[in-house]
This record gives sequence, structure tokens and C-alpha cells, in this order.
Amino acid sequence: MVQHITSHSNEQIKAIGALKDKKRRRETGLFLAEGLRICTEAVEAGRTPRTIAFAAETEGHPVVARLIAAVEGGGGTAIATTRDILHKLTGKDNPQAVLGVFKAWDTQLRNVDRFASPRWLVAEGLKDPGNLGTMLRTCDATGAGGLILLDASCDPFSVEAVRASMGAVFTQAIVQAEGPAFLDWLRDGPGMLVGASLLTDTGYRDVAYAAPTFVFMGNEQSGLPPEYAGACDVLVKMPMLGKADSLNVAVSAAVLLYEVLAQQDALSSH
Amino acid sequence: MVQHITSHSNEQIKAIGALKDKKRRRETGLFLAEGLRICTEAVEAGRTPRTIAFAAETEGHPVVARLIAAVEGGGGTAIATTRDILHKLTGKDNPQAVLGVFKAWDTQLRNVDRFASPRWLVAEGLKDPGNLGTMLRTCDATGAGGLILLDASCDPFSVEAVRASMGAVFTQAIVQAEGPAFLDWLRDGPGMLVGASLLTDTGYRDVAYAAPTFVFMGNEQSGLPPEYAGACDVLVKMPMLGKADSLNVAVSAAVLLYEVLAQQDALSSH
Repeated sequence: MVQHITSHSNEQIKAIGALKDKKRRRETGLFLAEGLRICTEAVEAGRTPRTIAFAAETEGHPVVARLIAAVEGGGGTAIATTRDILHKLTGKDNPQAVLGVFKAWDTQLRNVDRFASPRWLVAEGLKDPGNLGTMLRTCDATGAGGLILLDASCDPFSVEAVRASMGAVFTQAIVQAEGPAFLDWLRDGPGMLVGASLLTDTGYRDVAYAAPTFVFMGNEQSGLPPEYAGACDVLVKMPMLGKADSLNVAVSAAVLLYEVLAQQDALSSH
Repeated sequence: MVQHITSHSNEQIKAIGALKDKKRRRETGLFLAEGLRICTEAVEAGRTPRTIAFAAETEGHPVVARLIAAVEGGGGTAIATTRDILHKLTGKDNPQAVLGVFKAWDTQLRNVDRFASPRWLVAEGLKDPGNLGTMLRTCDATGAGGLILLDASCDPFSVEAVRASMGAVFTQAIVQAEGPAFLDWLRDGPGMLVGASLLTDTGYRDVAYAAPTFVFMGNEQSGLPPEYAGACDVLVKMPMLGKADSLNVAVSAAVLLYEVLAQQDALSSH
């Protein structure tokens, strides 16, 4: 049964709002996703919210009604509330009509089946959650297996990362690992580790990408650390014709993944 | 001579802070850029700040000293201030050591020389300043002529756009125009208008890109409006293998621009 809550000081509302904080997410193993479409796609991907909060006046909307049924069917809680409270929970002027609370899942390397896709994205020390979410979205579009985050990367379950992923957080494998453990795992099977670097003359279009290929990006400030660059099977460079000699890391990752996809597709269709 | 200001209520400090507001930028024709490297690159690109504010303790740093000399040599004002004031001006916890105030320049179409580069980026109704800045950075890296913003796109001189451009706002041509005026201008000379669309079966790698090519992106929510799609010489599609059927607009623009670059480079080297 849908609960109706109109008080800002309600404990459930406060508990939802607290999930904007990373520490609280870690303690509870829960995270937030905003938006009716994203929550609905999550259900389709097998991730049913534990709790949803939605603007009471949208309860009769057929898609909202289906989402409520899915949440309640999964033993979760549906809360009809006010736009004002949703505004406070999301920090946005025009809050999405639905906010979902999800259980984070196990992101350990041992869950990864490297043969699930011929291409993967690996990122080291990623700082910006918007870049992380954008990279998940690119993984989805290019049919990659998922995103492997090494070392002190930002939280894939933050509100900003989930928002930028446009739902891809629910469809992509997400792994968090330390670099040495990842390299051990990688070398325990087939896999071509391709580092994006400016310190090479090898063009990114001049390499034949094996399956599976792991595209390896350094972080926003400093690129791939030397010990990781040294562990790659090949380093590739994208043309940098401008003055800045740099590209957004999510942009670089996308250009590389689309090149890998194009090559692998051409091979598989011949 | 460097001015020393330590009061938050100083009129010059307040005037700088007010430039975070779009209305104020429009009234004054001025905008802000953060960071020593970006301000220095701006000077190298021929855009000398009218005013810089920097943390007083950095005044002796050789790069800061050169920047001060450039500003004063150009008739501008250098203000040594406190980290606290810089924090307030930038809204960031770790404010960049230098903040520059620049005069915005004329962004009319009539200033564009289409032969300045064989590739250009055009975006319609762009909403997100981070995407705008990222696109400028990609234009820089791919040697594009610049970014042509159509209709109600966000402000290329906002703090967020300038920040995301990592200095490319100073190296790239930036144009603001209405769609019909742009199409008139385009058809008054050579130019292949290539629209990014999901409503075509033409793969983005299956088209021969002419010089100059204008890569045309719709906005974040709705893609290219039908009347603009209809005005294109060709529509191209990138593979979308995932569930979301969408990519970040700056990511799509980069994949297309790198394909155009690769083709044009291959032609010019044969």
C-alpha cells in the first residue's frame, strides 16, 4: 500500500535524503536514482527499487502505477509525497517526478566474465562522477561489457554519476578493484590491454584490436601512471592538433571504444 | 601597479563576482576564466585579461609575474587578494590561484572563414555548459575551425562552459546564430552539412566527408529537429548497441569529428 508522507521531518524522507552522502551510502549499501524513465529501466534490467518516492499527483499515471506495482511486488515501499519534498531530496528546481532507492551490488572483479563482450573500459583514479556516468553510457552504446574502475576512482553510485549514466549504471557491469589485482586477473586469461597515451607514436587506428580488448584510460589530470602504461600490451594515441593537447577523458574513451567496435564488427561480418 | 584588496565589499571584487550572472555578462560584455594556465594560454592566443585577481602570496611566482606584466602592459588591472575572496568569487573550495576577466568578442557568423579548417562543429539548442566546453575542447584537439551555436544554446562565456573548455574557448572560433541565417550562410559557399541522427541507416563510417564538413548535432534531449535534419546533405548514425539508445552529445560529436579528421587526413597524405 502506498504511504503518503508530507512532512520534511519524516524519518523515511530523511533517510532517503541522507543517501546523497557517500559515507551514508557505504554504511547502508543503498543509493539513489532520479527519474521515472531511469527507475523503470532499472526494473527492466532486474534492479527493482527498495523504495520509491514520487509526487502524489502522479500516482494515477500508468507508468508510475506499473513502477509502484513492481516495487511493492518486490517487497519494497512506495511513498507518495510533495513536489516540495522531492525538490529538497534532489536539490533540483524541477525535481524528477520519481526518486528510487536501490541496493548497490557487488562490484568485485571475481564476478566479471571477460567473454561477455569483446570490449571493456578500464579507468584509473577517475575523479569526476559526470565523466564516470558518461563513460557508462558510452559502454552501453558500444556494447561493451562494462566499466572497471581502478584505485581511488569516484563512486559509481553517487547521484551525479547515476544521473550522467542515464540509466546505464543498471545495464553495465561495474567493477571496483585495485590496479595490481586487476592486472593479475587480466593476465590470467586472454585480453589485450590498450592504454590511451600521448607518449607513443602509434595511432589509435593503426592497431588491430583483439577480443577481448580492454581500453585503459588514466585520470582527468595526469593520464596513465607509468607503471600502468608499462603494463599495457600497446599504447595508442589520438591526434591532438590543437593548443591544449588534451581531451575530456570520457570523450577519448568513446573515440577509442568506437574504433574497437568498428574493427571488431568488420571482422565478424566477413 | 598591482592593487592589494582584502575587503569582500570592495566594489571591484563585487563587480568581478557579479560576472557569474548571465545578465551581468551581457550588460558588460565581460566574462570570467579561472586558472593560471588558462589565463596564460589566453594571453598566448591574443586574449589578454582586462583584470586578473590572484592570491597575494603567489605574486612572486614567475608565471604569475609574466601574466601580471601582460595584463598591465595591455592597460588592464592586476589585483592581489586573499584566498578567501578567491574562494568566494569562484564558489570552489580550492580556488584556482588566478581569476581573469575577459572581454567577450563578436560571435557573429559574418566573421567566419569557412576555409580556415576542413571541419566544423554545429550545435542546435545546446543546454549544458559542460557539454559546450567539452565540445570546444574536442574542436581544438581535432583541428576544427570552431563551434557554431544555433538558436537558444547556452552561453559559451559562462563560468562552467569556460571551465569545461580547458582554455579552448580562447583558441576556437565561436559563433552564435539563428538556424535559418546559418543555413543561408552555409549554402552561399561550399560545405557538407552532416547531421547526427538515429533516423537513418547510413553508418557514420560509410560516408565520404567533403571539405569543409559541418558536423551538426541536435540538443541533449531531442536531437536534431526535423526541419534541420531535412536541411542536411546527409544524416549519419552511430551504432547504438545498448538499451539506452542515446549517447552524450559531446561524446557523439567527438566520435564524428575524429572520423571526419581520419578521412580528411588519409586523403591529404595520399
